[in-house]
Amino acid sequence: MSKNITKREEDYSKWYNELVVKADLAENSGVRGCMVIKPYGYAIWEKMQAEMDKRFKETGHQNAYFPLFIPKSYFSKEASHVDGFAKECAVVTHYRLKTSEDGKTIEVDPDAKLEEELIVRPTSETIIWDTYRKWIESYRDLPILVNQWANVVRWEMRTRLFLRTAEFLWQEGHTAHATKDEAIAEAEQMLEVYADFAENFMAIPVVKGFKTETERFAGANETYCIEALMQDGKALQAGTSHFLGQNFAKAFDVKFTSQEGKQEYVWATSWGTSTRLMGALIMTHSDDNGLVLPPNLAPIQVVIVPIHKTDEQLETIRAEVKKITDSFKKLNISFKFDDRTTFKPGWKFNEYELKGVPVRVAVGPKDLENGTFEVARRDTLTKEVVSKDGIVEYIQDLLEEIQSSLFNKALKYRDEHITEVNSFEEFKDVLENKAGFISAHWDGTAETEEKIKDLTKATIRCIPIDRKEEEGVCVLTGQPSKGRVLFAKAY
Amino acid sequence: MSKNITKREEDYSKWYNELVVKADLAENSGVRGCMVIKPYGYAIWEKMQAEMDKRFKETGHQNAYFPLFIPKSYFSKEASHVDGFAKECAVVTHYRLKTSEDGKTIEVDPDAKLEEELIVRPTSETIIWDTYRKWIESYRDLPILVNQWANVVRWEMRTRLFLRTAEFLWQEGHTAHATKDEAIAEAEQMLEVYADFAENFMAIPVVKGFKTETERFAGANETYCIEALMQDGKALQAGTSHFLGQNFAKAFDVKFTSQEGKQEYVWATSWGTSTRLMGALIMTHSDDNGLVLPPNLAPIQVVIVPIHKTDEQLETIRAEVKKITDSFKKLNISFKFDDRTTFKPGWKFNEYELKGVPVRVAVGPKDLENGTFEVARRDTLTKEVVSKDGIVEYIQDLLEEIQSSLFNKALKYRDEHITEVNSFEEFKDVLENKAGFISAHWDGTAETEEKIKDLTKATIRCIPIDRKEEEGVCVLTGQPSKGRVLFAKAY
Repeated sequence: MSKNITKREEDYSKWYNELVVKADLAENSGVRGCMVIKPYGYAIWEKMQAEMDKRFKETGHQNAYFPLFIPKSYFSKEASHVDGFAKECAVVTHYRLKTSEDGKTIEVDPDAKLEEELIVRPTSETIIWDTYRKWIESYRDLPILVNQWANVVRWEMRTRLFLRTAEFLWQEGHTAHATKDEAIAEAEQMLEVYADFAENFMAIPVVKGFKTETERFAGANETYCIEALMQDGKALQAGTSHFLGQNFAKAFDVKFTSQEGKQEYVWATSWGTSTRLMGALIMTHSDDNGLVLPPNLAPIQVVIVPIHKTDEQLETIRAEVKKITDSFKKLNISFKFDDRTTFKPGWKFNEYELKGVPVRVAVGPKDLENGTFEVARRDTLTKEVVSKDGIVEYIQDLLEEIQSSLFNKALKYRDEHITEVNSFEEFKDVLENKAGFISAHWDGTAETEEKIKDLTKATIRCIPIDRKEEEGVCVLTGQPSKGRVLFAKAY
Repeated sequence: MSKNITKREEDYSKWYNELVVKADLAENSGVRGCMVIKPYGYAIWEKMQAEMDKRFKETGHQNAYFPLFIPKSYFSKEASHVDGFAKECAVVTHYRLKTSEDGKTIEVDPDAKLEEELIVRPTSETIIWDTYRKWIESYRDLPILVNQWANVVRWEMRTRLFLRTAEFLWQEGHTAHATKDEAIAEAEQMLEVYADFAENFMAIPVVKGFKTETERFAGANETYCIEALMQDGKALQAGTSHFLGQNFAKAFDVKFTSQEGKQEYVWATSWGTSTRLMGALIMTHSDDNGLVLPPNLAPIQVVIVPIHKTDEQLETIRAEVKKITDSFKKLNISFKFDDRTTFKPGWKFNEYELKGVPVRVAVGPKDLENGTFEVARRDTLTKEVVSKDGIVEYIQDLLEEIQSSLFNKALKYRDEHITEVNSFEEFKDVLENKAGFISAHWDGTAETEEKIKDLTKATIRCIPIDRKEEEGVCVLTGQPSKGRVLFAKAY
């Protein structure tokens, strides 16, 4: 398998696009802006799903499923929400096709026009809050802690595989609470769940923060986010958690009787992550040879390639390998013994490198004589000859080592790319020559935020949750500021 | 919790509708024909999904994801396919909303009309075969064994929760093969997977068979199916597996180079099951008191209800219960200790009966004195006092016993409701007075099939795979027949 991927230095964006396709993760479909997630890419997404789902359930959430379609009128009920999404909605207007009169083509049947148009959900707050009205009467019905795994559609004009597609897969949590404090605590809890998942499962370091008012979710009082940094110095929003106040409860008239017998509006949160995380994964760890996968996410953690000239050699190798793979099964280490004879070992090495398999084991006649295996690490591209005694433990440790090493490497890169600046000249200089997060004072106004964006294309990624108070002046206007925020160009 | 469900004898259909809603499985949404699957219902569906997914993977399949939308032109490529689905398609025609000129309403933006309309997938053969063309060049790329978990839309006019909804959730397998025999073997294998899943996991006995030409999937050469029998004597198609021949390969020009170097069309199968299975589950096992769930599918397998007057009693009970539930955890028995004080034990008993929790354990002060628990079985509504020594093993065995007992009960009912008839009078009589499957000779023509349907509303559910050859004459026409087929009224 020839790799032929553009180098990151040459053209990072091209490298990404080629890698996604050549590593068999996804490809564009015949439908504008919609992707096909291929089995290898989907297997990685399934691992993310399973782990997130587990964490959601551990924090008391249950899954449910709400309709794909949202009546147009629902959409209009929360004013800022419709403003945020109206420009990118797929709209269903008819419910039947028919054969044209000349019998030659299939066309939309004009007699089958819907009375009210249906929007393909771009997010489900409206349909869900319309449902919650029926579920909630008293404080005893609260909290509602529900998550949904679903597809959503946002009609983006410029799309990129995983990062921005017209249809994407995601999970959306929607919770209902009796008090403001409880809703805020939920939104913050889910931010922590996301951050922990990103760092300790995906090996992607993230900054936890608040969005500015401009960057908030359409309909939220507060948007919390986790922001990751890609290898090209651009930021990627990896997950958001919104405190929605009583906005949707008011729009859909969802009240409850409190313990004191009063009628009150319900408090809400919503939170989501999507197949965008696949983009974050790829751009955090991979290199010019292809994908690099943290062992937690690798569909195949260990590939074993036999090197042999005769069938007898292959049979001897197979017997030796079976001893190891039997142990792998017990340890839940996923593996593939690639004994295909249609491809040569070198071709296979390249293929598994491209696909980011964390550990490659090669075994040939010499190894059999010496009682050894050759073990190669995908992340460092290093090899070692390891005795067959203790090989299983060696690989088990190696997988853990790779997982933490990938995180540390990404963390180091990220930390080296948070630059404090104190003037707008410096701001522009860092953005141009180093990129990454720029930590700077900002006067807190939407005007300044907008102006900086116009001048530099950098946006405020977040106001870090753990930022320290620090007197300073806005890099653009010189107005007073009480702390730094993080700017970056972003995906 | 007051049950108040209509009795099955009174009105089976009403009983079903009420049960689905009152047991918190699903409800109608504000969107015509689309349902909300509530957390309790979704938890059951998740169990089905997990088990099926495991079985698909064990038989070599991988998951992938294809677009929600299908360009209208794709649809038209396979003639019988478009005939089958054109009349019930949701069609996306626009991609933007805008505020009306008076600023008062939100309307579809006429300037945002799609060049080509998009169909919301009713099934994905067309978009998938358009993709497979890019994936397949040589015999080395075959077979492709892919499954997709997705939502699909069929604009049904009369809908019923789970049984027939405009949007539903399903899985659809789509495989590509080098030879006809291999594709047929795949279609047959998946029929076996479905039958085994239905019987040994869901405790639903099924008949395996072929569909007649009239009842075949639009675009298939052969449709295999599993047919179940509901308690009202109506049949329910619980899963289908299609041998698609080269129809889609020809429509989408998908060829491969064979080992002999020849260009050949690829052979195909597709197979699917859906949230309809929830309807089958409910109507196979449940009774006038509510849901009855086989332990394999119960989100809560054992509920434990404390009966106490004082807090101290509750604490003692809690300590006793913890010993049991610690063992449950190790054994993967799911449980709930319902110590809410806002509801009385009697209310709780009713609620868990309604929700079909297989085993209920009650424990009060007397039990503490005697070292016993009261164990109640949902399926038989019987109770027993069990010593706390060995209670865990008792419950473990009981869960297995309930699972197999439910299957046997359903099997007995089903077998008692397969009636052989030899005249059309008998046919009508059985259909009217006993219902169930009617095993009868048929002359093999679509005309007779249609006529019987018009006269009786009964359709040929299937030609059983294991039917024995038997000379006979068609119940309607008296024409010769070589074996019996199964008729029934159906969902």
